[in-house]
Amino acid sequence: MYKAPVEEIAFTLKHVAGMDEAFAAGKFGELGEDLVDAILAEAGRFASEEVAPLGDVGDRQGARLIDGAVKTPEGWRDLYRNWIAGGWNGLTAPEDFGGQNLPHMLHVAAMEMWNSGSMAFALGPTLTMGAIEALEKHGSDDLTATFLPKMVSGEWMGTMNLTEPHAGSDLGVLKTRAERRDDGTYRIFGQKIFITWGEHDFTDNIIHLVLARLPDAPPGTKGISLFLVPKFLVNADGSLGTRNDLFCHSLEHKLGIHGSPTCTMIYGDGKFGDERGAIGYLVGEENRGLACMFTMMNNARLAVGMQGVAIAEAATQKAVAYAKERTQGRAPGWSGEGMSPIIEHPDIARTLLTMKALTQGARAIAYACAHAVDMAHVSTGEDARHWQERSSLLTPIAKSFATDAGVDVASMGIQVHGGMGFIEETGAARYLRDARIAPIYEGTNGIQAIDLVTRKLPLSDGDHMRGFLAELRQIAAAVAASNRPGFGETAARLDASIADLADATDWLLSALGAGKLAEALAGATAYQRLFGLALTGVYLAKGGLAETGDGKEDQRMALCRFAAENLLAETAALKDRVVNGAASLAAARSVLD
Amino acid sequence: MYKAPVEEIAFTLKHVAGMDEAFAAGKFGELGEDLVDAILAEAGRFASEEVAPLGDVGDRQGARLIDGAVKTPEGWRDLYRNWIAGGWNGLTAPEDFGGQNLPHMLHVAAMEMWNSGSMAFALGPTLTMGAIEALEKHGSDDLTATFLPKMVSGEWMGTMNLTEPHAGSDLGVLKTRAERRDDGTYRIFGQKIFITWGEHDFTDNIIHLVLARLPDAPPGTKGISLFLVPKFLVNADGSLGTRNDLFCHSLEHKLGIHGSPTCTMIYGDGKFGDERGAIGYLVGEENRGLACMFTMMNNARLAVGMQGVAIAEAATQKAVAYAKERTQGRAPGWSGEGMSPIIEHPDIARTLLTMKALTQGARAIAYACAHAVDMAHVSTGEDARHWQERSSLLTPIAKSFATDAGVDVASMGIQVHGGMGFIEETGAARYLRDARIAPIYEGTNGIQAIDLVTRKLPLSDGDHMRGFLAELRQIAAAVAASNRPGFGETAARLDASIADLADATDWLLSALGAGKLAEALAGATAYQRLFGLALTGVYLAKGGLAETGDGKEDQRMALCRFAAENLLAETAALKDRVVNGAASLAAARSVLD
Repeated sequence: MYKAPVEEIAFTLKHVAGMDEAFAAGKFGELGEDLVDAILAEAGRFASEEVAPLGDVGDRQGARLIDGAVKTPEGWRDLYRNWIAGGWNGLTAPEDFGGQNLPHMLHVAAMEMWNSGSMAFALGPTLTMGAIEALEKHGSDDLTATFLPKMVSGEWMGTMNLTEPHAGSDLGVLKTRAERRDDGTYRIFGQKIFITWGEHDFTDNIIHLVLARLPDAPPGTKGISLFLVPKFLVNADGSLGTRNDLFCHSLEHKLGIHGSPTCTMIYGDGKFGDERGAIGYLVGEENRGLACMFTMMNNARLAVGMQGVAIAEAATQKAVAYAKERTQGRAPGWSGEGMSPIIEHPDIARTLLTMKALTQGARAIAYACAHAVDMAHVSTGEDARHWQERSSLLTPIAKSFATDAGVDVASMGIQVHGGMGFIEETGAARYLRDARIAPIYEGTNGIQAIDLVTRKLPLSDGDHMRGFLAELRQIAAAVAASNRPGFGETAARLDASIADLADATDWLLSALGAGKLAEALAGATAYQRLFGLALTGVYLAKGGLAETGDGKEDQRMALCRFAAENLLAETAALKDRVVNGAASLAAARSVLD
Repeated sequence: MYKAPVEEIAFTLKHVAGMDEAFAAGKFGELGEDLVDAILAEAGRFASEEVAPLGDVGDRQGARLIDGAVKTPEGWRDLYRNWIAGGWNGLTAPEDFGGQNLPHMLHVAAMEMWNSGSMAFALGPTLTMGAIEALEKHGSDDLTATFLPKMVSGEWMGTMNLTEPHAGSDLGVLKTRAERRDDGTYRIFGQKIFITWGEHDFTDNIIHLVLARLPDAPPGTKGISLFLVPKFLVNADGSLGTRNDLFCHSLEHKLGIHGSPTCTMIYGDGKFGDERGAIGYLVGEENRGLACMFTMMNNARLAVGMQGVAIAEAATQKAVAYAKERTQGRAPGWSGEGMSPIIEHPDIARTLLTMKALTQGARAIAYACAHAVDMAHVSTGEDARHWQERSSLLTPIAKSFATDAGVDVASMGIQVHGGMGFIEETGAARYLRDARIAPIYEGTNGIQAIDLVTRKLPLSDGDHMRGFLAELRQIAAAVAASNRPGFGETAARLDASIADLADATDWLLSALGAGKLAEALAGATAYQRLFGLALTGVYLAKGGLAETGDGKEDQRMALCRFAAENLLAETAALKDRVVNGAASLAAARSVLD
C-alpha cells in the first residue's frame, strides 16, 4: 500500500526546487519550515490512510449514471467531506474568500500525494481549483461574492467545459452558443464532451465554467466567451434556487480513472427551467474567454504533471515492495539460502532504479515549476518577469515529462510484477490505465512540445533560455568541483547533456528565425524529452550536492550517478533527432498515404 | 477496422527474411510463390473478415466461468470451427498426422494476421500448436496415435501447464507431483496457475501437458517430468471416456486478452473419477520434462513475438486511419480549407512513421527467425548447425523487441487518438491492454535478455555472432554502394549502429569470459534492445534495396531512411549503457533498501 514519501518530498521542495532560497530571501512572509513540514505530514497522512485505501474500490466500481444522477464509488462521498473538512480545498485560495493563500509549491506537493492515493479522486478537486482561479482573476465582484466562498470551502465543486466532439486541441472551432438577455445574463446552448466531474453526488451544487460563442462573435479563438453556469441557480440569500437547464447525458467508458465521471453535458435543451437555455453569467469580457482560460491553463498543466509524478511514485513503491518479497532463481552473487528476492537480479534492480530516477526527476521539474509560479507571485518588476518566464518555460516540460514518466514507470512496474502484474487485483495494472490519460488531456504532450518550442524558447528573444542553461552549467560545475567519488562520471555526463540541450536550442531558435516552422516542429517532441532528461540529471545532482546531515547523502548521490551514467546518454540521440530528423520525416510522409 | 497487410507481409517474407533465397536453393520442394501468395491471401481474408470483427466482443464479454465450465464470447465457438475447417490448425504439423507440413515462415505470417484480428482468440490455437510440437517430438507411438490426429485437425485443443504460484520464471521449484501406477500411467496432484485456455467450450476434449515431479526425482530442474493429462480419457476406439480428475477452479481478471480464459487448474483433488489423482501419461523420459518443454519453447517465444508484431500492425492501421480523418488546427504548410487532418502535423506524422518503422522492423526480425527455423529443418551438417544457431540467436530478440514494440506502438496509437484514445469504444486502448502481457509471458523480456547474453552470444565461441555481424555489414555496404539519394544518411547510420552492436558484443563476451556475470547482466536488456534496433535498421535497408517493380521502392527507402536518421542514434546510448552502466547500478543498489 502506498505510503506518502513525505521526507523525500520535503527534501525536494527545500533543497532542489528552491524553497530554501525563497525562505532565505524572505519571500514567504511568516511561513516557516515547521509549518511546511506539518502541512506535508498531514497531507501525506490523509493520502496514505484515507485516500489510498479507497483507490481500488473507485477503480472497480467506477462512477455510474443512474436516472441522470452520478453515483460515486462507495466511501468516496465521505472521503471528500473529510478532505474539505481538513481545509485542503482552499490551500492556495485567497484569504478573502476563506482560503489559506499558501505557496503553490505546497499545493503541488500535497496534490502529488493525493493523486498517488487515487488519481480519479484527486482529479475532481483539481478541476475545482482551476475554476476558483479563473473566477478569482476574471469574475465580477458579484460573481465572486456569490460563488467563490463556497467553492473555496469545497461546499460546491467546479468544472471546466471546453471540449466538443469536433473541437479538442483546437478550441477555435467550438459551436456551443450563448445568447444575451436583457437582464445581463446569457443563455447557453450546446453539447460539451469529456467534462471531468461534470455531475456527481459530492456536493449540492456544481459550478460549470463553459466556453461558448456569442452570435456576433468574430470567428476562431477570438470569438469565444467564458460563462459561469451553475447546476442550481443561487438565490439572493445564497440558498439554492431552481435547477438550471443542463444535465449529464452520459458517462464515458474509459481505460482508467474509472472513479472519475467523464460526462457529456447538454446545455439548454429545455429539460429544466421555464425558458430553454441554461442561464450563464459572463466571466471577464465578451470574446475574451480563451484568455481567461489560459490564465489557469498553466497551473492546470502543472497539476496534470503532478498526476504523472504521483502515479510514478505509487507504481515504484509497489514494484520495489514486490521485488523484495518475490523470490525466483538465484541472482549472480546471491549467497543466501534458496531463491533470491528478484530485486537481487540486475535487470530488476536496473528497472527499479530507472523508475526511481524518472520519478524523482519528474518531481523535481514539477516542483521547480511551482516554485517559479510562487516567485512570480511575490516578485515585482524584472524579477517578476524572470519568474513568470521560468514558470512558462518549465510548464510544458513538467506536464509532458512527468506524464510520460507516469506511463513508462507504471508499465515498468507491471513488468517487475511478471504475470501478477497483468492481474487486475494486484493493482499494478491500474496505475498504467490511470496514467495513460495524463499525456493526453490539458493539451497533449505533442501540443506541449509545440508550445515549448514556438512560444517558450523565444521568450525574451531566447535570453531566458540562455540564462537557464547557464544556471544548469553551474550545477554541473559544482558537481565537478565537489570531487566526490560517489558522483562517478556525473559531471562529464551533465556537461554533455547540457551541451546537447544548448545545441538543440540554438538549432531550433535559428530554424524558427528562418521561418522553418515545419522543421522545428518535426523535432519538438524529441527536444521536449531531451530537456526533461537533462533537467532530471541536473536536479538529481542538485539533490546529490545538498548536505543535509540526514544520512541520505550517499543514496542521493548514487541515484544521481545511476541516472547520469545510465539514462543521460539518450540526450545525444534526441539532439540528433532534433537537428537531423526533419528531412527524413518530410521525405517519408508519402509512406502514410 | 483491421485489414491484413498481405502484400507487405509477402514482401517481407520473400525479400527481407530470406524466403526467396530458400526458394532459389530449392529448400522447400514443390512449394512455390503462387501457393505462398494464395495461403497468405486466404489467411489474411480470414483474419480481416472473420476474426477481427469478433475481437471487440471478446474483449467486452470476456471468458466467463459458469458452474465449472468456461463460456467463451459470443460467436467465438463458430469462429473456431470455421478456422479449423479451413485447415489452419495443421499448417505446420506433420503430414502423417493430417498436417500440411508447410514452412514455419508461413505459419508465423498467418499467426500475425490472426493475432491482429484478436490476440485473445489466436492465443488458444498457439498453445495447441506448442502441445502438438512437444508431443510429436517426445510422445510415444501410442500417445501420438491417440492424440495427435485430433489435435492437428483442431477437434481437440491443447494447453501447457508450467506455472505455479511460487514457480514462474523458475520452474525448478515447482511442487505438482506425479505418482507411478503399475499400469504405466501416473496420477497427478497439484495446482497450476495462469493456464491459458485451460478450460473452454471450443472442443469436446482438452489435452493438458503438465510439468510435475516424481516422488524420487532429483531436486531442481532436473527432476521435472512432462505428462499428457486429458480432460476426458480416451477409449480404445478413440471415443471419449470418463472425465479425468482435473478442473478449472477460477479465471483471472486481467488487464487484457479478456476473451482468453486464464485458468487456475486443480489436478487430483478427487472431484472426478473413482480414485483420487488425474490420470497422466508420461511424455518423453522421466525427469526430462523440462528438456521436452524447451524444444517447443523457442517456437512459443517466437509466437509471442508475433503477437507483438500483430498488435503493432493493428494499432498502426487504426491510428493512421484516425489521423487522416480527424481534423484539428492548421499544420505548417497546410494550404487546404479550414482545419488540416492531424496527420499533417509533424508530431503526428513522426509518431505514425515511428510506429510503422518499429512494426516493420519487428516483423522482419521475427520472420527472419522463422526462416532460420525452417532452414535448420531442411538442412544437414554444418548448415543445420548454422541455422539452428541463427534461430537460437534471433529468438530472444524477436520475442522481446516485438513485444516491446507492441506495447510502445499501442501506446503511441492511443496518443494519436487524443481523448478518444482513452475511451474503450474506440478500440485503441484494447491494443495496449492486450499487448501488455506479451513482454511478460513465455519468459519475461528480462529473461530473454539473460538468455541472449549468456547462452546465445557464446554460441560457437562467439563465431556465430561475428558471422552475423559480417552479414549485417554487407547490407550496410550495399546501401552505400547503391548510391541512391533516397537513402539519405542511411549507410553511415547503419555502420554506426552495427559498430555499436559489435562493440557491445565484444564487451559482453569479454565480461562473460572474465566471469563478470553481474556486470554482463546489468546491461543485458539494453543490449537486447540495441540488437533489435540495429536489426530494424538493417532489415528495413534490405527491404529498401529490393527491386520489385511494385512501385513501392521509394516508400520503402523513405521509411528506412526515416528509421536510420530518427531512431538509430539510440544505439549509441544503449551501447554506452552496456559498457558503462554496471558500476553505477551496483553503487546505487542501496537506494532500493
